[in-house]
Amino acid sequence: MRRALAICVFFFPISVFCQSKALVFQSDFGLKDGAVSAMKGVAYSVDKDLAMFDLTHEIPAYNIWEAAYRLKQTAPYWPVGTVFVSVVDPGVGTERKSVVMKSRSGHYFVTPDNGTLTLIAEVLGIDQVREIDEAVNRLKNSDQSYTFHGRDVYAYTGARLAAGIISFEEVGPISKSDIVRIDYQKPSFENGKIAGTIDILDIQYGNVWTNIDKSLLNKLNFKYGDKINVSIYHKDKRVFEESIVFGKTFGDVSEGKAVGYLNSLLNFAIGINRGNFAEKYKVASGPEWKIVLKASDGH
Amino acid sequence: MRRALAICVFFFPISVFCQSKALVFQSDFGLKDGAVSAMKGVAYSVDKDLAMFDLTHEIPAYNIWEAAYRLKQTAPYWPVGTVFVSVVDPGVGTERKSVVMKSRSGHYFVTPDNGTLTLIAEVLGIDQVREIDEAVNRLKNSDQSYTFHGRDVYAYTGARLAAGIISFEEVGPISKSDIVRIDYQKPSFENGKIAGTIDILDIQYGNVWTNIDKSLLNKLNFKYGDKINVSIYHKDKRVFEESIVFGKTFGDVSEGKAVGYLNSLLNFAIGINRGNFAEKYKVASGPEWKIVLKASDGH
Amino acid sequence: MRRALAICVFFFPISVFCQSKALVFQSDFGLKDGAVSAMKGVAYSVDKDLAMFDLTHEIPAYNIWEAAYRLKQTAPYWPVGTVFVSVVDPGVGTERKSVVMKSRSGHYFVTPDNGTLTLIAEVLGIDQVREIDEAVNRLKNSDQSYTFHGRDVYAYTGARLAAGIISFEEVGPISKSDIVRIDYQKPSFENGKIAGTIDILDIQYGNVWTNIDKSLLNKLNFKYGDKINVSIYHKDKRVFEESIVFGKTFGDVSEGKAVGYLNSLLNFAIGINRGNFAEKYKVASGPEWKIVLKASDGH
Repeated sequence: MRRALAICVFFFPISVFCQSKALVFQSDFGLKDGAVSAMKGVAYSVDKDLAMFDLTHEIPAYNIWEAAYRLKQTAPYWPVGTVFVSVVDPGVGTERKSVVMKSRSGHYFVTPDNGTLTLIAEVLGIDQVREIDEAVNRLKNSDQSYTFHGRDVYAYTGARLAAGIISFEEVGPISKSDIVRIDYQKPSFENGKIAGTIDILDIQYGNVWTNIDKSLLNKLNFKYGDKINVSIYHKDKRVFEESIVFGKTFGDVSEGKAVGYLNSLLNFAIGINRGNFAEKYKVASGPEWKIVLKASDGH
Repeated sequence: MRRALAICVFFFPISVFCQSKALVFQSDFGLKDGAVSAMKGVAYSVDKDLAMFDLTHEIPAYNIWEAAYRLKQTAPYWPVGTVFVSVVDPGVGTERKSVVMKSRSGHYFVTPDNGTLTLIAEVLGIDQVREIDEAVNRLKNSDQSYTFHGRDVYAYTGARLAAGIISFEEVGPISKSDIVRIDYQKPSFENGKIAGTIDILDIQYGNVWTNIDKSLLNKLNFKYGDKINVSIYHKDKRVFEESIVFGKTFGDVSEGKAVGYLNSLLNFAIGINRGNFAEKYKVASGPEWKIVLKASDGH
Repeated sequence: MRRALAICVFFFPISVFCQSKALVFQSDFGLKDGAVSAMKGVAYSVDKDLAMFDLTHEIPAYNIWEAAYRLKQTAPYWPVGTVFVSVVDPGVGTERKSVVMKSRSGHYFVTPDNGTLTLIAEVLGIDQVREIDEAVNRLKNSDQSYTFHGRDVYAYTGARLAAGIISFEEVGPISKSDIVRIDYQKPSFENGKIAGTIDILDIQYGNVWTNIDKSLLNKLNFKYGDKINVSIYHKDKRVFEESIVFGKTFGDVSEGKAVGYLNSLLNFAIGINRGNFAEKYKVASGPEWKIVLKASDGH
């Protein structure tokens, strides 16, 4: 590929014709065994000049929601053309489809079609989705054994796409159905109440991050120092209700008190000053969680 | 190296004369301190164009068996010429030799000769083993302090070999003795019994993976749904005996029940449907473990 | 950049004019979310040919001392010109400055100026420190939201510096004040006593590593087998005092006994043969810890 590249440079002054794209891996494999390395070995065998990176391999086992969230959080910071390979695949062996989604922004996502694409499709938009044709897009001789799809199909196809060995069209036929989408509480405002879901926990500190952004929060005209009435539901069961201060920093409340704030994504979040909100109230994240905000009565 | 490469491309159309090889690191150092980074800094100083990767650095401390197993699991997916540097070295400071093994497949393994090569030597075959001549193959000035062999000898030598700065012959003299091999129960069939060892645990799920492959298992003509009598021994002491179903998926048994199945390597494995077999029966992996399969009486 | 490079090779035979430098990341972000990947995406967007590496992302949250120590432990093994981006930043949002330090050795360190540079400045010396001018050295459009400084300022600036897109001078104005330095017990010898701090724990084994080096230790003429009287203080409160053997290896004392020894950096360290010193005596590391050595009375 380096050779190819130098030649390209020579004949085609516009390097975009020749340059391979970054390949970014995500999985729930962890880093303790050889699974990630086997995927990279296959990709490196495809093209020795691929630039390979990791998003994370510490997605909790089978947690499709978190896989979806990490793609949304990260992909926009990678250049157009970057190929993401995401393998969180509780349905391996079942009939879930293997797809490559091209976003309207021009990023590619290679993944089992199991909900992983839910959030990134909303954020970047869908240009086209193609089903991987495993008759051609599969590591040679890998059908002699039970397939390790992450390595034999996803890493292999992602690497060939990133390297420009196959075009997006050569991935396989256009998918006839919409992608699988996880059902969750979209951010909304109705009857004086803002609703949303808990996107993710800021694990290291136990803060709860919602999908309610600043502009939606503004519908209730909260100012720093105001109290917000917060209810949190798990599968429709209320597990938390309290009126908490809307603060600029954690220091706006005394130690051990909960505070609502805007996180680094400018979304509404909740934490405890020098404490762990998620642990204290046994709150987690994902589509089963719903949060509702309204003006506090004592407001 | 990029400069060298471009020149190579110019004068030698066949890039194999010039292109450096991948360098893949494995250790029990973990990722919390600077040890891995120091190794990579040394390798990068040797050649700025080396493609460096990690197998894993989470080998349990001093666990040579697991180091051996991860090489076997992963190396075949990397291209011929790839240089592996594996540093799990409980004997640092003792008289264990430092070697580079070239496999018959053309892969290189830089490691203390302490059993780490046991399994990869069986799988890929040995072409030649050379002892590292530390008089030349050692980071300059590193003898001023206690040596960190992983960095000063193994990473340094692996990098120079991968970069083509030294040839395999320049590593040092051919080793006069065989590599150190860990003694373990090879897969075997005798008197209606199949024996093997527990290669590794599928840690995240607590499944037990054996070195008994499908073709050996076929000696007893098990069909899906049959019962297999399984005994597991630790240092000759039996710690488990039960007749379990041979299933195609975990769903073939009810929740909490043990099931025998073929894993992604097509080897015999044991797990519990939605449970953790290794934890429940306090079973681990490595050369001290033996597993014996026979037809169940109630079969 | 590859294109640029090939052209460079053509016109400038001395590749140093063209070649980008390694970019090495350190943080307390962990590897479970997308923060590290977002930083690398930004850096990759700056220059597709940057060689990126990780020092560690497992610095304990907000532990500036350990960030400082890891830079000192690792940076000298990377070539001159390497750019380190270290983001351990408890003061994000406060008035701490963002700087790039060029060491006398020619390495660069991009970091909040919060003490992270303390040890590397001592080891490599300071050539010059510049404050990052965020008016120009900040990811475009990143001021629309709360800034993630690690990504929008540090990774972005580090990448542009490593790629040669900006010169060191273009980072911003020369810093008018000295860097922030953490106060800690420097290695010293007075009145027959050697004092120092506990630099770091060798976590996996619970050994205690001090900043007292071999030449300083020699002031007391200890020989292997001698007893050393060791006192350890936490914020001036003594938490350990005992006379322990100065050994060449752990095997010089019986199981469970403490031993003083020279570690791989040739510094004085303390461990327990097949035990965990730090855990047993609840000893940790950092500027709040002091260690004093003197000849044992029973010597």
